[in-house]
Amino acid sequence: MNPSDISYVVDTLFLLFSMTLIIFMVPGFAMLEAGIVRTKNVSAVLTVNTLIYAVASMVFLLVGYQLAFGSWETDSVSKWAAFLFQMAFVGKTVNIMSGGVSERTRIIPLMLFTLVMAGLIYPLVVNWTWGANMLAGTFLDISTMHDLAGSTVIHSTGAWALLAAILVIGPRKGRYVNGKIHVIPASNIPLVTLGAMILWIGWFGFNGGSVGSIASKESADTVALTIMNTNTAGLAGAIVAAAIVYWQYRKFDITMILNGALGGLVAITAGADLFDIYTPILIGLIGGALVVFAVPFFDKLRIDDPVGALSVHLVNGIWGTLAVGIFASDVSFLAQLKGVVVVGIFAFVVSYAVIFAINKVARFRADDDEQMEGIDVSECGLEAYPEFKRAF
Amino acid sequence: MNPSDISYVVDTLFLLFSMTLIIFMVPGFAMLEAGIVRTKNVSAVLTVNTLIYAVASMVFLLVGYQLAFGSWETDSVSKWAAFLFQMAFVGKTVNIMSGGVSERTRIIPLMLFTLVMAGLIYPLVVNWTWGANMLAGTFLDISTMHDLAGSTVIHSTGAWALLAAILVIGPRKGRYVNGKIHVIPASNIPLVTLGAMILWIGWFGFNGGSVGSIASKESADTVALTIMNTNTAGLAGAIVAAAIVYWQYRKFDITMILNGALGGLVAITAGADLFDIYTPILIGLIGGALVVFAVPFFDKLRIDDPVGALSVHLVNGIWGTLAVGIFASDVSFLAQLKGVVVVGIFAFVVSYAVIFAINKVARFRADDDEQMEGIDVSECGLEAYPEFKRAF
Amino acid sequence: MNPSDISYVVDTLFLLFSMTLIIFMVPGFAMLEAGIVRTKNVSAVLTVNTLIYAVASMVFLLVGYQLAFGSWETDSVSKWAAFLFQMAFVGKTVNIMSGGVSERTRIIPLMLFTLVMAGLIYPLVVNWTWGANMLAGTFLDISTMHDLAGSTVIHSTGAWALLAAILVIGPRKGRYVNGKIHVIPASNIPLVTLGAMILWIGWFGFNGGSVGSIASKESADTVALTIMNTNTAGLAGAIVAAAIVYWQYRKFDITMILNGALGGLVAITAGADLFDIYTPILIGLIGGALVVFAVPFFDKLRIDDPVGALSVHLVNGIWGTLAVGIFASDVSFLAQLKGVVVVGIFAFVVSYAVIFAINKVARFRADDDEQMEGIDVSECGLEAYPEFKRAF
Repeated sequence: MNPSDISYVVDTLFLLFSMTLIIFMVPGFAMLEAGIVRTKNVSAVLTVNTLIYAVASMVFLLVGYQLAFGSWETDSVSKWAAFLFQMAFVGKTVNIMSGGVSERTRIIPLMLFTLVMAGLIYPLVVNWTWGANMLAGTFLDISTMHDLAGSTVIHSTGAWALLAAILVIGPRKGRYVNGKIHVIPASNIPLVTLGAMILWIGWFGFNGGSVGSIASKESADTVALTIMNTNTAGLAGAIVAAAIVYWQYRKFDITMILNGALGGLVAITAGADLFDIYTPILIGLIGGALVVFAVPFFDKLRIDDPVGALSVHLVNGIWGTLAVGIFASDVSFLAQLKGVVVVGIFAFVVSYAVIFAINKVARFRADDDEQMEGIDVSECGLEAYPEFKRAF
Repeated sequence: MNPSDISYVVDTLFLLFSMTLIIFMVPGFAMLEAGIVRTKNVSAVLTVNTLIYAVASMVFLLVGYQLAFGSWETDSVSKWAAFLFQMAFVGKTVNIMSGGVSERTRIIPLMLFTLVMAGLIYPLVVNWTWGANMLAGTFLDISTMHDLAGSTVIHSTGAWALLAAILVIGPRKGRYVNGKIHVIPASNIPLVTLGAMILWIGWFGFNGGSVGSIASKESADTVALTIMNTNTAGLAGAIVAAAIVYWQYRKFDITMILNGALGGLVAITAGADLFDIYTPILIGLIGGALVVFAVPFFDKLRIDDPVGALSVHLVNGIWGTLAVGIFASDVSFLAQLKGVVVVGIFAFVVSYAVIFAINKVARFRADDDEQMEGIDVSECGLEAYPEFKRAF
Repeated sequence: MNPSDISYVVDTLFLLFSMTLIIFMVPGFAMLEAGIVRTKNVSAVLTVNTLIYAVASMVFLLVGYQLAFGSWETDSVSKWAAFLFQMAFVGKTVNIMSGGVSERTRIIPLMLFTLVMAGLIYPLVVNWTWGANMLAGTFLDISTMHDLAGSTVIHSTGAWALLAAILVIGPRKGRYVNGKIHVIPASNIPLVTLGAMILWIGWFGFNGGSVGSIASKESADTVALTIMNTNTAGLAGAIVAAAIVYWQYRKFDITMILNGALGGLVAITAGADLFDIYTPILIGLIGGALVVFAVPFFDKLRIDDPVGALSVHLVNGIWGTLAVGIFASDVSFLAQLKGVVVVGIFAFVVSYAVIFAINKVARFRADDDEQMEGIDVSECGLEAYPEFKRAF
């Protein structure tokens, strides 16, 4: 091999490996959400996840990537691999949003929003942070925020869009009745677990790949450290969530334990490359605890989020980004806060306006009869488990 | 590292990575098929998928690889990795065939056919195309066909065998009654989705690895481009299938959307290394549309194919191979057509003869009572979901 | 890239790839076990698998790794990648143990044992074999045992702990009644199959990564050969198990076929780097056959092991380690036997003492009512499939 080509080749292979892990998060999200919703809404959730990947990736290929980065050209790695790695992220922002409005949302308006998120909102956020930075030189410049793999850029962006969507669409029918919260149990715990575990593994590519290069001793160390820290925060999030729910209820609620792990993973995403062994434990412990307390908090506010996406992605997206400002010696807390605020206001306001507008032409919310019968029948024309007799 | 060894090492790692992704297609096929068939036939489908991998790979190790390539020796990459990569493909041809005769087929005759496919039919097709080429110099030489990863060599070969099998075995009992087509819904949509998504990801290794080397700038670009194009065609296939089924029925049928994606993936398999951004979109759009129209077409012909394998693998195997002749500037359309025809006649005729012969000594078709009770009980002695009460 | 850094970079990438495959075994084990147990115990099994990964990995990070290897420093590969690769193994030993005491075991005592296994028992076994070797120079020195990836170090260690646990905890209520063995069928065959297939693929990283380096022609050949042999033994184990169960019952019992494959994989784990094509077939054939005969054997002894973990991991852990002494020309059979005996006595005696002691302060066994109602309700406060009506 031509010596000058070695790092090009190795980094291309590394990005392709990382991209593959991230795309495993597509079935990861799909299984997690399919397991959490009721059986009558499972096919709709799976259809939405499939179409989000298809539509968001296609729009990013045709429009979004150029808007985010200004050019397809790269020097140090195959430009096609660089695109694939970036493309692997875009659907995640919509996944986060769609999961939280499950069980009451129609598919076509979701797809219209997917077009805007993947073609405009997310590419602009990337432009300002990891990309061409059209805000350079303005007072809105947030490019000094340290956000390795997107605690803010991806997780918060998607979750702000979710909050906007929940405000427009409202809660599931029957969720809040006469001032009481009606608990709706997950229909398939193995799928929830499988999905969360695949997400966890996908995060190794998500964060590790975001280092961008493995082709030197220093880079290889940073990549491996990043993956170790990522995993460590997930471990800590799972453990603390298990401890808290056991302390509260004397039961190990697996859905909360898994969401605790995911909370830790979101929280470490901004700074996984910066710390050694102990800080990720602390970030993950706080992240997991935040999930356990945020889930009932949002319920008290009548913000109905079936999969806990706000608790996992919004709360911990913010926490993780700020944590870098707190724990990393050479990162400015104010730069982190500014990034959180600028992206938050932009993502929430634009998403709200877009969702509000779409809702005028193509109603987002399935009506009460459709919800009662299940979104599977009204939107997909089939059932997820037609041969299994329902207990209720 | 010895400089002259670098490309050997990197390409070995690359092939092992690709091979791993392809072998993930084993659970991919298994879950897809287990989700599509009725609950009473799920264990049989899983047993068949497991045994196909075991038997086909073992036969290829002992006989088929040598027949296909003439030698174990390789120069540029570990010979064991080269074998593993090729071995990862062989079971796919039988998976394609077995899936399409699900719900009515006995296991032992399927295993006998697996021996012949993995030990003779598939190795001969590989010999003529990617391998030692015993047809060189004859008028049957098809080695100029450009078939990167097997639109013809793998997908069509398996699907021609399936067509032969369906002609011998016949449709499922109760599928076509009094001139009417009885629709049999998929029993587990999450498994269908999980399986299709794993297949999609596995295709990155399937097509990307078929480039054969990543160890130069040019090769790295080709590998990354190949994976991007593969993914793009899958996106386009999913989108067009969703659009057509929504236009037809006002419903998003997830099984058709996933089959549309798979159709796009099969279609791009022959030429994923040759195109830039837009041609794969076109190939995938046509591929996905072909699936949507082919599924009812085969049903009209009373060709009963529960998983849509003919629509996905045969129609798009042919389309994808011909598309290279249409869109690639320096590939001969006639060479592509000749490859399609020669492989098609060979695979269909020999498969038909072998299946016909096996059927004389070990009946392929489960009898009506066995089908009514379910293949799980008659062939496996167990049920897939014994605790779940059936709705019918 | 700096030439002297190339092997460091490539081996780091190789270990990260291998580590990722091993961590896929976490959902692999989880799905396998969730599919085998009755629906009323599925959530508990999934909770246990999740918490084992979290707790065991965290303890290994904080304590165990240092105890096993004496230092975090490495020369030839990123120290963080080296840690991650080793960490990926530790939970497996407890997974093996927890799977075999499913359907009757409470979670807190299992977690207490996890602390001891991951912080003390497993690190000591690693110390003596792959690690710092505190037994060097003593008559207990077993470091000459050839155990590539842990037929003894991992599989037997976990399975000896399982045997100790079964002796303390006893069989499931209703399993052995009036001298009769009550067969308890697996509740979800697709999950069993998915889990086993993911484990199989994970084994490529498990054994291949244990070669430790891919960064020379010789190493690359050894890695590829190791993966090929690993796969071959799995193929042989599946085939022989299928043949025997068909010969016995005229049925293809998929759970036994998959356990046969896993038995072959465990058996080849000690010596996958040493053989060429044919010896792994023989080792796998014997491994698969041992599983088929060991399962009813343990049942006759009233050793209740719902997932067949003793047959897969103990019997074949021993067989695989001894097989290296039989088939490898330059490995001493006595060294292998000594390793098996020393590790076996240590793991069994210490595990028994620890489990016995934990059982005094935090009862391991769920009482009869809890078992009747299901561990899901008593330990997790939820059901795995709340909407699916039970057939019994």
